[in-house]
Amino acid sequence: MEHSYRLVIACPDQVGIVAKVSAFVAEHGGSLLEANYHTDNVTKQFFMRNEISADSLSVSLEAFKDAFQPIADAHNMTWYMRDSKQPRRVALLASHASHCLADLLHRWRSGDLLCDVTCVISNHENLRSMVEWHDIPFHYVPMPKDAEAKAKGFAEIDALIQRYESDTIVLARYMQIIPPAMCERYPHQLINIHHSFLPSFIGADPYQKAFERGVKLIGATCHYVTDDLDEGPILEQDVARVGHKHDRDDMVRLGKDVEARVLAQGLRYHLEDRVIVDGNKTVIFD
Amino acid sequence: MEHSYRLVIACPDQVGIVAKVSAFVAEHGGSLLEANYHTDNVTKQFFMRNEISADSLSVSLEAFKDAFQPIADAHNMTWYMRDSKQPRRVALLASHASHCLADLLHRWRSGDLLCDVTCVISNHENLRSMVEWHDIPFHYVPMPKDAEAKAKGFAEIDALIQRYESDTIVLARYMQIIPPAMCERYPHQLINIHHSFLPSFIGADPYQKAFERGVKLIGATCHYVTDDLDEGPILEQDVARVGHKHDRDDMVRLGKDVEARVLAQGLRYHLEDRVIVDGNKTVIFD
Amino acid sequence: MEHSYRLVIACPDQVGIVAKVSAFVAEHGGSLLEANYHTDNVTKQFFMRNEISADSLSVSLEAFKDAFQPIADAHNMTWYMRDSKQPRRVALLASHASHCLADLLHRWRSGDLLCDVTCVISNHENLRSMVEWHDIPFHYVPMPKDAEAKAKGFAEIDALIQRYESDTIVLARYMQIIPPAMCERYPHQLINIHHSFLPSFIGADPYQKAFERGVKLIGATCHYVTDDLDEGPILEQDVARVGHKHDRDDMVRLGKDVEARVLAQGLRYHLEDRVIVDGNKTVIFD
Amino acid sequence: MEHSYRLVIACPDQVGIVAKVSAFVAEHGGSLLEANYHTDNVTKQFFMRNEISADSLSVSLEAFKDAFQPIADAHNMTWYMRDSKQPRRVALLASHASHCLADLLHRWRSGDLLCDVTCVISNHENLRSMVEWHDIPFHYVPMPKDAEAKAKGFAEIDALIQRYESDTIVLARYMQIIPPAMCERYPHQLINIHHSFLPSFIGADPYQKAFERGVKLIGATCHYVTDDLDEGPILEQDVARVGHKHDRDDMVRLGKDVEARVLAQGLRYHLEDRVIVDGNKTVIFD
Repeated sequence: MEHSYRLVIACPDQVGIVAKVSAFVAEHGGSLLEANYHTDNVTKQFFMRNEISADSLSVSLEAFKDAFQPIADAHNMTWYMRDSKQPRRVALLASHASHCLADLLHRWRSGDLLCDVTCVISNHENLRSMVEWHDIPFHYVPMPKDAEAKAKGFAEIDALIQRYESDTIVLARYMQIIPPAMCERYPHQLINIHHSFLPSFIGADPYQKAFERGVKLIGATCHYVTDDLDEGPILEQDVARVGHKHDRDDMVRLGKDVEARVLAQGLRYHLEDRVIVDGNKTVIFD
Repeated sequence: MEHSYRLVIACPDQVGIVAKVSAFVAEHGGSLLEANYHTDNVTKQFFMRNEISADSLSVSLEAFKDAFQPIADAHNMTWYMRDSKQPRRVALLASHASHCLADLLHRWRSGDLLCDVTCVISNHENLRSMVEWHDIPFHYVPMPKDAEAKAKGFAEIDALIQRYESDTIVLARYMQIIPPAMCERYPHQLINIHHSFLPSFIGADPYQKAFERGVKLIGATCHYVTDDLDEGPILEQDVARVGHKHDRDDMVRLGKDVEARVLAQGLRYHLEDRVIVDGNKTVIFD
Repeated sequence: MEHSYRLVIACPDQVGIVAKVSAFVAEHGGSLLEANYHTDNVTKQFFMRNEISADSLSVSLEAFKDAFQPIADAHNMTWYMRDSKQPRRVALLASHASHCLADLLHRWRSGDLLCDVTCVISNHENLRSMVEWHDIPFHYVPMPKDAEAKAKGFAEIDALIQRYESDTIVLARYMQIIPPAMCERYPHQLINIHHSFLPSFIGADPYQKAFERGVKLIGATCHYVTDDLDEGPILEQDVARVGHKHDRDDMVRLGKDVEARVLAQGLRYHLEDRVIVDGNKTVIFD
Repeated sequence: MEHSYRLVIACPDQVGIVAKVSAFVAEHGGSLLEANYHTDNVTKQFFMRNEISADSLSVSLEAFKDAFQPIADAHNMTWYMRDSKQPRRVALLASHASHCLADLLHRWRSGDLLCDVTCVISNHENLRSMVEWHDIPFHYVPMPKDAEAKAKGFAEIDALIQRYESDTIVLARYMQIIPPAMCERYPHQLINIHHSFLPSFIGADPYQKAFERGVKLIGATCHYVTDDLDEGPILEQDVARVGHKHDRDDMVRLGKDVEARVLAQGLRYHLEDRVIVDGNKTVIFD
């Protein structure tokens, strides 16, 4: 992948914004590898992602950003610019199930998921050996049922996230509800995989619910976590076909493939700065 | 399609049922074109569909059925046997939207949907010309808002269904709620297409709800109608991909294809006697 | 759909093109409804599509185009600009099979396929009634086996295309090979649906070949016609699942749905000026 | 998964076979967990798979098989009966790419792929550590370019297969052509994943070919290996969507997911005795 800077912008829509931003990029020698725009016709917000060849820029990233700030101010922009060579730092949280974690670690190791995996945190010990084989720190943080102990556990998790300077936290089938304070502390940084096609089957054991309802497709949903359970902005969804031959356990097995695929795709969008949150929805420049 | 008889059975599961039924079929010369079984492990109900070459039978259909009755009684079977040459008689109900109706009529006319279309009933006049071009009777039954007039309308619809001796009623985007009494009168005979991936977005305007939730897939669900709105046994579901570029109207347009396809597939299963209702779920021998 | 002008450009890639074009658009008050870019890294060609709100422009379409020409010349652009209110004029060619034609006509009639259907030309009479019900001229042009008569037939077809001032010709399962001269006369204007997942099963009776090979998916391919049979630039492809239960006729039936869907999608891209041909490939800004 | 015996049969079709076999099963107390039939209408061959609850049988597996032999002889059956508790013994061959191997090993370790993995054989060393972490023997068998050394390598591989008593050999992106003699020695036991939607792009570097052709879907094909390269009976196929944004390397990355999924599914069918080869096609009772 070519070395690039990603300039990501959200602001109120108005005529000439694309021209202004792309003229600014061109004036600094910037060659666009990819550029995408979207206007939300309901909120009249404008969204833009420019992927600029790093080598083409005539100035440093810092100088570019400094020079851009007045334009950003003039148009009331929320924006950032990121160097593709400074990958996001991802903490992975898992419980007992291995499929999403194993899938992400393999993609990361193969160079297909560009990020630094800082650590794996789990409330079970069973995945330690796999994680440590990948030379990634594994932290066991138990999650007892009583509220006080749980709060202590989440404080420990938070401390670990901070210690490893993680900017992204992936819940790779982590079966604990994240406390509201933590959801707020990491807005659009907490990524979850829910094992149903949301908004169907919110909450616990969606495969049992899917089995009981007799649906002909099961699904999975990757979304940012908010303090409203299973209601955060959706990054990706997919489905798999089931039928009367499949009981709950078959659905669990078939669902694993969908979950792993959907989580990896959602995370990839996030890592490549392709996602902009628009209210409770996402704009995804794929 | 070869001329066949379809012997469809549901009964409590027990060892030797397949042997008993298939021996009976073989004793009467019956050559099996297709045979399918399923046992519901929760309810311990057994389901069976045998498609028997009509020409191979050494006795008449009536004689076969008479001879089979003692076996059915002995095993507490719910069963029927249908001649593929006596297609089901289907009444189509539609409102203003044409896509499902046009699709079904074209499949029927092309010989791809083996049934007799007895009539089309609608609360709008706009589809009359298309229906009459197909030489199918079109009946306009208005559905005013007040309850009494609506009840009268449904009485008229029921009379039409009876008059045309229809055994299957398809709601091809018919935008009226069927009264409970009519749901009960036609158990597993009323087929609806709901324009969402149930159980997501039950009720009115699911595309608006899908748009607001920011889902990445929209869907459609074909189900038998019960008096519990959008909760009947599901025959078929499918989805289509959407994204931030699509507003509600785009979803409506993209959804049309899914709706037409899912309804046609669900109806096909029904017409070919491939569906057995198992509680609130379906066994589909495809 | 909002009234818009579509400015579609191909030219050698260079820094600042997006800025120059979007600045030009902005200077004329143009509000971008949608904008897409692509650079082919092999050929170093740049492709661009701008959809501009018609009402936002401060000058007429003609004045805009005149003023743009110097920029186009300076950058060696191949380009055009089209008014969304001047829909393409589409001639439909069909043989005996009705599914693609019926599907396109229904979409057109429903307002989901924005074009003028100028006429239907067929080498069979069986679809006349359906076409005429839609108030579209139907022309029967027989296609005998001998070469001379065939050439005469194609001359007649060409005359009809000219007479109706059609700019797009859709082969909706038209089972005749288009003569090379006609392919050259209508570059990227002739759209075909091939009933296989190209490049598998080029040539005649692909479903028979698929059946014999035992594939688990069948497909369809929408492509521009060139004088190299089944080798033109691909607009769209899709597949459907099959198995050992399906014989050739089942595949034909299942394939109809895929063919109709793929042709409609490919044609839609073309009608909305979303396709730019890049060598033997297509850039599609969807 | 319930302990079962799988009785798998192929024979010339005739009336009463289902009855005879299912009567035999019932007479020995056999409770059918699943039963599937198929008749090939071209070859008039009949195929049958019975999954019988092991606990329900009144006799031993050996006694059952002995008693069944006369029926098999009388109907000219090719048949076998396998105990689900005696999983197949699978040797995995890999080259440098890890995605299929990692995927299969994770599924096996999670209990989702019921087999014994006997060993991994590779012409590269890079996957040794991953394999050995799974406590599976890893054998490095180099494959130099010269024919004699290659033949020696394959002799060594064959000896390893024998030594580990493997009955199934999976080519998990093993990039060497299997010699004809070895193909013949292991009929319907050698399973390959080809990285295209066969019969498209037979041979080397299919993603480059797909990129050059401009297809809109890429695919993968799992098939039994015969001495006719990429022409063996197909077990499973699937596709993924691509577009003008994707270069060859993107296709390689997107293809990995499809390859891993398709190989795992094809292998699963094989391991569960769901595949019967019918000429150059497969009957798959899923």
